[in-house]
Amino acid sequence: MIVVMKKGATQQQIDHMVQRVEQLGLKSHVIYGTERTVIAAIGEKRDEHRQSLESGAGVAEVVPILAPYKVASREVKPEPTVVRAGSLVVGNCHLGMIAGPCSVESAEQTLSIARAVKMAGATALRGGAFKPRTSPYSFQGLKEDGLKILADARAETGLAVVTEVLAATEVSLVGRYADVLQIGARNMQNYRLLEAVGKEGKPVLLKRGPSATMDELLLAAEYVLNAGNPNVMLCERGIRTFETHTRFSLTLASVPYLHDRTHLPVVVDPSHGTGHANLVPRMSAAAVAAGADGLIVEVHPDPETALSDGYQSLTFEQFEALMELCRRVAEAVGKQIAPNEARLAGTA
Amino acid sequence: MIVVMKKGATQQQIDHMVQRVEQLGLKSHVIYGTERTVIAAIGEKRDEHRQSLESGAGVAEVVPILAPYKVASREVKPEPTVVRAGSLVVGNCHLGMIAGPCSVESAEQTLSIARAVKMAGATALRGGAFKPRTSPYSFQGLKEDGLKILADARAETGLAVVTEVLAATEVSLVGRYADVLQIGARNMQNYRLLEAVGKEGKPVLLKRGPSATMDELLLAAEYVLNAGNPNVMLCERGIRTFETHTRFSLTLASVPYLHDRTHLPVVVDPSHGTGHANLVPRMSAAAVAAGADGLIVEVHPDPETALSDGYQSLTFEQFEALMELCRRVAEAVGKQIAPNEARLAGTA
Amino acid sequence: MIVVMKKGATQQQIDHMVQRVEQLGLKSHVIYGTERTVIAAIGEKRDEHRQSLESGAGVAEVVPILAPYKVASREVKPEPTVVRAGSLVVGNCHLGMIAGPCSVESAEQTLSIARAVKMAGATALRGGAFKPRTSPYSFQGLKEDGLKILADARAETGLAVVTEVLAATEVSLVGRYADVLQIGARNMQNYRLLEAVGKEGKPVLLKRGPSATMDELLLAAEYVLNAGNPNVMLCERGIRTFETHTRFSLTLASVPYLHDRTHLPVVVDPSHGTGHANLVPRMSAAAVAAGADGLIVEVHPDPETALSDGYQSLTFEQFEALMELCRRVAEAVGKQIAPNEARLAGTA
Amino acid sequence: MIVVMKKGATQQQIDHMVQRVEQLGLKSHVIYGTERTVIAAIGEKRDEHRQSLESGAGVAEVVPILAPYKVASREVKPEPTVVRAGSLVVGNCHLGMIAGPCSVESAEQTLSIARAVKMAGATALRGGAFKPRTSPYSFQGLKEDGLKILADARAETGLAVVTEVLAATEVSLVGRYADVLQIGARNMQNYRLLEAVGKEGKPVLLKRGPSATMDELLLAAEYVLNAGNPNVMLCERGIRTFETHTRFSLTLASVPYLHDRTHLPVVVDPSHGTGHANLVPRMSAAAVAAGADGLIVEVHPDPETALSDGYQSLTFEQFEALMELCRRVAEAVGKQIAPNEARLAGTA
Repeated sequence: MIVVMKKGATQQQIDHMVQRVEQLGLKSHVIYGTERTVIAAIGEKRDEHRQSLESGAGVAEVVPILAPYKVASREVKPEPTVVRAGSLVVGNCHLGMIAGPCSVESAEQTLSIARAVKMAGATALRGGAFKPRTSPYSFQGLKEDGLKILADARAETGLAVVTEVLAATEVSLVGRYADVLQIGARNMQNYRLLEAVGKEGKPVLLKRGPSATMDELLLAAEYVLNAGNPNVMLCERGIRTFETHTRFSLTLASVPYLHDRTHLPVVVDPSHGTGHANLVPRMSAAAVAAGADGLIVEVHPDPETALSDGYQSLTFEQFEALMELCRRVAEAVGKQIAPNEARLAGTA
Repeated sequence: MIVVMKKGATQQQIDHMVQRVEQLGLKSHVIYGTERTVIAAIGEKRDEHRQSLESGAGVAEVVPILAPYKVASREVKPEPTVVRAGSLVVGNCHLGMIAGPCSVESAEQTLSIARAVKMAGATALRGGAFKPRTSPYSFQGLKEDGLKILADARAETGLAVVTEVLAATEVSLVGRYADVLQIGARNMQNYRLLEAVGKEGKPVLLKRGPSATMDELLLAAEYVLNAGNPNVMLCERGIRTFETHTRFSLTLASVPYLHDRTHLPVVVDPSHGTGHANLVPRMSAAAVAAGADGLIVEVHPDPETALSDGYQSLTFEQFEALMELCRRVAEAVGKQIAPNEARLAGTA
Repeated sequence: MIVVMKKGATQQQIDHMVQRVEQLGLKSHVIYGTERTVIAAIGEKRDEHRQSLESGAGVAEVVPILAPYKVASREVKPEPTVVRAGSLVVGNCHLGMIAGPCSVESAEQTLSIARAVKMAGATALRGGAFKPRTSPYSFQGLKEDGLKILADARAETGLAVVTEVLAATEVSLVGRYADVLQIGARNMQNYRLLEAVGKEGKPVLLKRGPSATMDELLLAAEYVLNAGNPNVMLCERGIRTFETHTRFSLTLASVPYLHDRTHLPVVVDPSHGTGHANLVPRMSAAAVAAGADGLIVEVHPDPETALSDGYQSLTFEQFEALMELCRRVAEAVGKQIAPNEARLAGTA
Repeated sequence: MIVVMKKGATQQQIDHMVQRVEQLGLKSHVIYGTERTVIAAIGEKRDEHRQSLESGAGVAEVVPILAPYKVASREVKPEPTVVRAGSLVVGNCHLGMIAGPCSVESAEQTLSIARAVKMAGATALRGGAFKPRTSPYSFQGLKEDGLKILADARAETGLAVVTEVLAATEVSLVGRYADVLQIGARNMQNYRLLEAVGKEGKPVLLKRGPSATMDELLLAAEYVLNAGNPNVMLCERGIRTFETHTRFSLTLASVPYLHDRTHLPVVVDPSHGTGHANLVPRMSAAAVAAGADGLIVEVHPDPETALSDGYQSLTFEQFEALMELCRRVAEAVGKQIAPNEARLAGTA
């Protein structure tokens, strides 16, 4: 850390800060500038002392110089992590394609979607059984019945199941059925939940909160990693800004930024990231071009009648077209994406 | 709701949407404009169908016209709610003053702060025993030992205890010691936790998430109210914006806005809302002038050595000056604030 | 427009609003709902009356239902506009590649960059002669000398010149040298300047302000179009959000959104949109995949010594690699991009 | 500046950066940390070299340590600036109250408003003659006729006139009639305009752009100061955020923050800052409590018929009540505000 003293800070204030830095077990190094003095604080565990130093008399600011996350850092593990969960492979050159309904509504709905997205090339099935809803009066999901439906769809199609878990107490239940435990954006800093999925061990898809910084996202991942679970996928799903023409603002620069800072794979959610079905295919292609390691897309046989998120869900035809577009872009940027099974089988 | 059809929507598309509106049990009303047609959908439970209608062919957008929250709404209960929790009274003309350390660090620290803020006129003691921290490597709080320290400080000073609870499974433990259960900004949409504090029944201080809209905040309150607990205080603590000269942007217009929409009292947190001790007194005064029903302020005998949030904590002297300033402003806007006890007793 | 009355609005208030709507020359249409009444206002020139109606007694809100821009609207001109300016062609299937230094620093610098970007496939040269700078103490550009240098580079390479104009009084001067007049983000709502470039007639590259909405951007374009100049290119260059890992947040969903609403072509600026050279290539590829009609990229032979924006400028080698990446992605999404001239000539 | 080298930067890279720092005429100071090396760059004119250093090989980031504004800085001139323009006094203990219509609509309208706000205690008249409008199809103001009306209202009431100027070429015209030249939010970084009002010499009210940082606002002021005009009032009028319940988000912490950094007075605009008349009185009181040196408020005899901004304008009665509220709060925080003239004269 660099402790920047105020212009006009007294020698006594400077000496005091040097003393405090050393009391914290750090080595100090004073630099007298033309107008100001700065004190470098060197050693282990510097960052946690930042707030303490910032309130010292005569201190203008304290500037950290190291990333606060450790295990997630690319400096610690330079090679990219590849997360595998049944049929789903995400990371390095493998582009995972997760698709399905916002909510599991019935066995028929879920199975028909699973078959359709499988045929188009999806490598995992998404679907909400426990739904976090802004209003207590909205549909809250089919709960365990929904999990069973997902497991049945996996048995039939072979697709890995990605589904959200809302509370630490529900992790073991959801873990019995799911291949990937999804942490929703609202729960990105629900630390008890992060610790619980960290201990459970199943691969985790961690969604970025709508106002979370990159450091906050990586530190949330660090909670899971620190609890012993190395299989974390980060998920960019858009941030909250002043824009109203989209539901959230999908800032794809986080993809190459995260690839620079962490070895964890990055999945993009263009459905929540835009909130409008007509913007999803182009933003999916853009995410792949930006280097995303996977996509998670909402698909529904009849978006008009969906119990949630219909306006951002794609029809089967739209999803198949999206897969075609992404397949071409993936090839252009050197990523592998699963083929259209129907076409391979000569039936499409 | 108003379903706005696209320019050029066909009569068939319009008829289809009318039919869909009526299938949803709503009454439809078609208006043919110069360029576009709109369909009004009238009846109970309209808002939950919005997404479903929005994906109809030919539909440009669906505009809701009623507040989605019910029990929290001022239309339902016009008179302001006054929340009482031991020494703390918040709402209507009563200005509750909650002060204390970010984290409970020791019995001595906590008791000395409790005495000092009580003398200056605070009506409740805040202090974190379970601390949600961005990094898993930061100090996580003294946990139950911290709760005991807070209860001891209440026994000695008579101040009600306000402290955060992080998970549904910890509600009964924290509820045994606390007078007010605080839901932190990170957990504003942790629905299992909201339901749990709703059932527990103790007064709740619900902090606004840093990117939550007013509707989202009121719907989070609705989860608690809907679970049977009417004693909810909303807390404005700043939003995340592009500004960097403050930790968050404290947008006080939410105070008069909320007073217009809901009967629930509104508390302001100028410590997190600014992140800098030197900005706290003025923003406290501004909050009182804006009509806030209470303040929650971080105080520490020696901010420089605080284990968390030192840079935004006030010393005892600064807090006493803040109370003097707020007392004068409260009088100017017709609010009651507790007197300085030391001065009353002739010792200050 | 839809005038939504408050719950409990009186019949007298409703009648008054109906009368006001009709006084404005609009046709009114009243709908009595279960809890509220809404009044539809139908006819020409509705939107300008919105504010006037919104302040009526008993009115809860007024909801507009038509786009406020006219000439820019896709409803008015469904086929995409193609802007041509010398060597630069932007729109429909033509992907314009504009590259060059942030500031024109010298004839040598500019010419060497022009040659290099031309070889790599750029179709226009960017470069600032009049520089808008946040601080009055920063380098303000070479002014007319800079314009001459750009014109010389055009004479030598054949590349069209894109350069910024800062004030209405400087439009004719800059117009003498430039092929495209750039309006910077800070001036997006400088209406005198917009009117002046509208009258001048040269093609305009209009950058989005960092907090401009889509409607504000389109209405700024409308000022230029309305003054008689149909050759407007919109430019997405990132918005200001809470994110700090990038200079601005590049929200590419504006590309497909604008393509849906307007016939004007959309150029993307990944250099300002990210602020970091290492993020530029991937975000360029993402922009192309999102459907951008052009890119504008900062290139410098030695970014370390650039007088401005060095940290976001690419070297010649980096730009050539970017062009290769974009060429592959453009092909994947059906766009035409100019070939690498050096390679064609067998010299690279 | 502090140049932070990447973990693993080579000695050669470090030596190179030291050499570059010294080539820039700065003194370098190298500190070898446990994991990283940092180089302090000391001397005059450091900040302009930041971008240049940031692109050096092996450099992780460059951290500036001094404010980029000079003449506006409180370090340069510790005592607060008081701006005087006819009847208007703003700064230190003087609270200037500027009120009037959004647009000058007619002589009768303007004079009736001027009389009413004078009686209630306003010390200056606002009113737009040249109106910047988002749409080219909206009312653009009465132009010079409007300026004459304002001057007539001043002749009758003695109130100083505050009005907006949109372009450098219009500064001398507007300056002939106005006492204070207002720079609107859209033009905060219109540098030709800033330079022109700097040379003209009349006091300037500089509004913050909706996405401007504090440094950008202060550097815009620096353009005016640097051109020779010391009479600059800063104006906080709200920023653009994700919030939709207000037109902009009025973040009042900028008031005490600016008072800490600059000697220039700070005026608050609660009308644009909230966008809703019912929120204006409370936010005016909050601004005064936060330490504002002045307010600028929109008032209209019949907001419903106003040609612009009717929904945020106060009636005469509402403005008189606002003045009463602010008078009490001003007294509580030690500011002087003009009395209600009508009451003094025994007529109210």
